[in-house]
Amino acid sequence: MIRRETVEKRLGELRRRMEEKGIEVALFWDPDNEFYLSGFRAISYSRPIVYIVYKDKTQYILPELEKDHAKQSRAADEWLIYHEIASHAGKELDYWQLLQRVLKSLPKSSVLGVEIDIIPASVYGRLVSEGFCVRDIGQEVMEMRAIKDEEEIRWLRHAGRLSDLAMEASFANVRPGMSELEFDSYGDQRLLQVASEYYPNMIIGYEDWTCSGVQRSAMPHLHSSTRKFEKNDVVVHSRQVWINNYRAENERTFLIGTPTETQKTCLALAIKAQQTAMEMVKPGVRAKDVDLAAFRIFEEAGYGRYVQHRTGHGLGLTEHEEPYLRFDNNLVLKEGMCYTIEPGIYVPGVGGFRHSDTVIVTKDGYESLTNYPRSLEKMIHQR
Amino acid sequence: MIRRETVEKRLGELRRRMEEKGIEVALFWDPDNEFYLSGFRAISYSRPIVYIVYKDKTQYILPELEKDHAKQSRAADEWLIYHEIASHAGKELDYWQLLQRVLKSLPKSSVLGVEIDIIPASVYGRLVSEGFCVRDIGQEVMEMRAIKDEEEIRWLRHAGRLSDLAMEASFANVRPGMSELEFDSYGDQRLLQVASEYYPNMIIGYEDWTCSGVQRSAMPHLHSSTRKFEKNDVVVHSRQVWINNYRAENERTFLIGTPTETQKTCLALAIKAQQTAMEMVKPGVRAKDVDLAAFRIFEEAGYGRYVQHRTGHGLGLTEHEEPYLRFDNNLVLKEGMCYTIEPGIYVPGVGGFRHSDTVIVTKDGYESLTNYPRSLEKMIHQR
Repeated sequence: MIRRETVEKRLGELRRRMEEKGIEVALFWDPDNEFYLSGFRAISYSRPIVYIVYKDKTQYILPELEKDHAKQSRAADEWLIYHEIASHAGKELDYWQLLQRVLKSLPKSSVLGVEIDIIPASVYGRLVSEGFCVRDIGQEVMEMRAIKDEEEIRWLRHAGRLSDLAMEASFANVRPGMSELEFDSYGDQRLLQVASEYYPNMIIGYEDWTCSGVQRSAMPHLHSSTRKFEKNDVVVHSRQVWINNYRAENERTFLIGTPTETQKTCLALAIKAQQTAMEMVKPGVRAKDVDLAAFRIFEEAGYGRYVQHRTGHGLGLTEHEEPYLRFDNNLVLKEGMCYTIEPGIYVPGVGGFRHSDTVIVTKDGYESLTNYPRSLEKMIHQR
Repeated sequence: MIRRETVEKRLGELRRRMEEKGIEVALFWDPDNEFYLSGFRAISYSRPIVYIVYKDKTQYILPELEKDHAKQSRAADEWLIYHEIASHAGKELDYWQLLQRVLKSLPKSSVLGVEIDIIPASVYGRLVSEGFCVRDIGQEVMEMRAIKDEEEIRWLRHAGRLSDLAMEASFANVRPGMSELEFDSYGDQRLLQVASEYYPNMIIGYEDWTCSGVQRSAMPHLHSSTRKFEKNDVVVHSRQVWINNYRAENERTFLIGTPTETQKTCLALAIKAQQTAMEMVKPGVRAKDVDLAAFRIFEEAGYGRYVQHRTGHGLGLTEHEEPYLRFDNNLVLKEGMCYTIEPGIYVPGVGGFRHSDTVIVTKDGYESLTNYPRSLEKMIHQR
């Protein structure tokens, strides 16, 4: 769901960039880019969906089972449908037959734009073997997507608020003996109840990762499991919520029972590093400086060697997108950029410690879209 | 979690196929293939993970934050780690720097295997520009994955049973006024409770799609929304559940209140088409014949024009995988293959009608892994 005038504006900017790169026709493969540039997003799995942008029109190549969904969206000027059942045996039976028809209608010298970091090698190979010159257009779209407009920021705010409510429900129910997945489930239920009440006829989604105990919390990237919380566990709880495809990320590290002094020190450091990085955010600052500010907090306290990852990643339609807050990224932050701030440390035998919040760069600072309490005191659950 | 001897057996078969195709070193990009061939599965997002199979050893290229998780799995002989923080500035900072190091150690004439339908065009381009000959190895792995062994079938059975329990809980709570997402949520809760009780320390996941009402149920591929059930709705409810990465799919179409005669006719037809297709399954039958048997039921009843999709898709580690039950697929079914049987019709103004079950081809027939009741009577909820 994107306003038609917004889509037209984006297509205008895309076409300007296509012309700059000498690209006559652009083919999109990535569902998030397709949504951004057309307002239509489908589930693709084994059936490719191709969105084609010409100078003066747009086309979608789709499997028949997406036809009604797509046409209802009015997201393109033309629809090319491929089939997979016996009664359509004489027609096009996969995306490639339709794409060949499209390619035949273009002059052989045409320059095509594709998402070079996303499109499969086999598809690229087919385009080149048909004699076309192929250039990347993916980077241009990522640059466009990195600056969020008012409409996008509104959806991101909704996603952030929903993630706070979900987190509140999970925390209200925390107790030793429940599994990571059961802990998540309380937040999911609350999210779905609230969303059902206040956002009629909307697509809402979520993903949770909860890593509990000294060993699992010290590994930053794990799916939730049926491991049960134990007295004195450290837990890193991560939640992404999306509404109308826009995502906010919200993470808190908490302690069940009585933490050790070292655990308290580590979590206090992670909170301080996050706060320090957050307060640096404003237009004109470089991505690297935000990352280095957080890293320095850990390093000065003697915990630098327990850092394993950058301070944050961009967010919007995709789980991770540009801009990345990394020590070697010279990118200058601009108003409308959106990313997570999530510096962390992972200490063997002690646990993992990381809060994450999603922020938008405003005219002269930042706005946090996720606002669940962050303080050390609130993170200790004496149950 | 895959037994080490199973991984070794698969690597043996992969190496035999590599030799047959003249491939000296194979690079894997897809997390499901990586899991199948190593027993390790990571969350990759913006940080690529490459699994490399040589004639006599295996290697993983990984971001630092996956290091402990990976090493604990003992899934490879060697680990190459890239970094993203300031204190490692002199080391490799992305997967490509490590992959270049790997490539430099190979003779220039080496033939590399890649998943040509999965690996991004930019990565493929880099390999070719380094002077290597690159061939597909993805098809070979898909062929291997299409036949499930006893260990895999055990996990698929667990996934099927869990999906039945979840479905039971959703159905026990169905009522007009609840949203699609709330309906799903009852099943999710039950699934997570049961899984937490009976499967300690396991990764469990699920995905639900519920499409309610005449208009939404007639579109086969939509995410669940906050639309609320109304009296006399047709609803297509779809659920995939996975445990240890193995997935079962379970779908039921149901009617709330009093269905029309046409709706009853349509659902009875979908049930008959599914039953007919299911009973055809045994080794030696062609994929196309299963599809055509289901299609014929609709066609003979005058509903052929409302069919939009094939009868089923393979299932295992990926949402959709080979073999596909399509009218033009001559593939001969073999013992150990696993797929969904889900013929459907989508009738404008009436609704969508589709049950899906996951079956395994046995020695002389089939075994359905999902067994929630299918009959028309059980699908009418007089609430």
